[in-house]
Amino acid sequence: MKFYDCATAPSPRRVRIFAAEKRIELDTVQVDLANGEQFGAAFRDVNPDCMVPVLDLEDGTRLTEVTAICQYLEEMQPEPSLFGASPAERALTSMWNIKVEQQGFLACAEAFRNSAKGLRQRAIAGPDAFEQIPELAERGRERVTKFLNRLDMQLGENTYIAGNHYSIADISAMVVVDFAGWAKITVPDDATNLTRWYASVSARPSARA
Amino acid sequence: MKFYDCATAPSPRRVRIFAAEKRIELDTVQVDLANGEQFGAAFRDVNPDCMVPVLDLEDGTRLTEVTAICQYLEEMQPEPSLFGASPAERALTSMWNIKVEQQGFLACAEAFRNSAKGLRQRAIAGPDAFEQIPELAERGRERVTKFLNRLDMQLGENTYIAGNHYSIADISAMVVVDFAGWAKITVPDDATNLTRWYASVSARPSARA
Repeated sequence: MKFYDCATAPSPRRVRIFAAEKRIELDTVQVDLANGEQFGAAFRDVNPDCMVPVLDLEDGTRLTEVTAICQYLEEMQPEPSLFGASPAERALTSMWNIKVEQQGFLACAEAFRNSAKGLRQRAIAGPDAFEQIPELAERGRERVTKFLNRLDMQLGENTYIAGNHYSIADISAMVVVDFAGWAKITVPDDATNLTRWYASVSARPSARA
Repeated sequence: MKFYDCATAPSPRRVRIFAAEKRIELDTVQVDLANGEQFGAAFRDVNPDCMVPVLDLEDGTRLTEVTAICQYLEEMQPEPSLFGASPAERALTSMWNIKVEQQGFLACAEAFRNSAKGLRQRAIAGPDAFEQIPELAERGRERVTKFLNRLDMQLGENTYIAGNHYSIADISAMVVVDFAGWAKITVPDDATNLTRWYASVSARPSARA
């Protein structure tokens, strides 16, 4: 198994944290995103979407998409369970993980990629050039802040994002909070539940992965 | 179990098709999206995101997000499997389902919601008002067409989206093709693999759900 990673990027970090929680050691290849290695012919063969992470399985199967990779690792190493322990818990965990990804992570990417000077024509990650849309950067910021408040509400009633157990949804949401910082979006001062939760998940040794 | 549906909307249709494939009969409540029932206090109690579908479980758990709902139904009724039969197949199915949702469905929604006259200030589904961004409608159209070509390539090598078995990824992708029609985006003439696959999945009785 080979893991295509980039030490500075938020998406592969989600997999690294997940693997660390499970004490899985990944055989890692760094892809130099800053210098455009993801657009070169060699990496396009690995992933035509020109993105990390990728998990290359022994049988030649290549998995992209953070959640699909984590799901595979969960099956290889079920304990500790990070996708939930019962059908309802697993469905809630998936549900929250999707919300975090679509309403949190993609909104952060919108805010960041449509405003960063170094990302002109790179408004969407992947092989195709898309011009930045300044209104979209603004809208992304607004969406992220709303979503952080939504997480704060959820964490007023639950220890963790998807209920009372630490899960993949917490990993995804912690990385969203850190990624939001790239677009200079901070946790609202009155989001005390989110602040409490963030301190707790960030103190786990896996958060350094 | 109670299913909050809207007969005309693409997202809950994905769940209806999934349930039909498994011969699960859902106890269904129609939510009148055209008249804004999703924004009323009663429905906000069911789903503060103001969206269908929602699956209300016996124990009070409320599931939103199409994939999370389908995952729960898969656990209740494992046959026929629509999430894959081995760990690698399950991960590939998840991977493709995520790509279809993020690169296909969300791009269609971008194209449609940022241009439809009836959706001013409703550029994003959910409780919050967002102005339409005309550039985003245009970009959405471009992304959808690129993605349909990507699916065509994938279907040149595989009978179905995630490999050689019909799965949730096919349901999601078929609904994307139909949803693309709402924004007047059609399958490219030379996408012969996609055309062959679309005819086959649309001919399944579940497609009428």
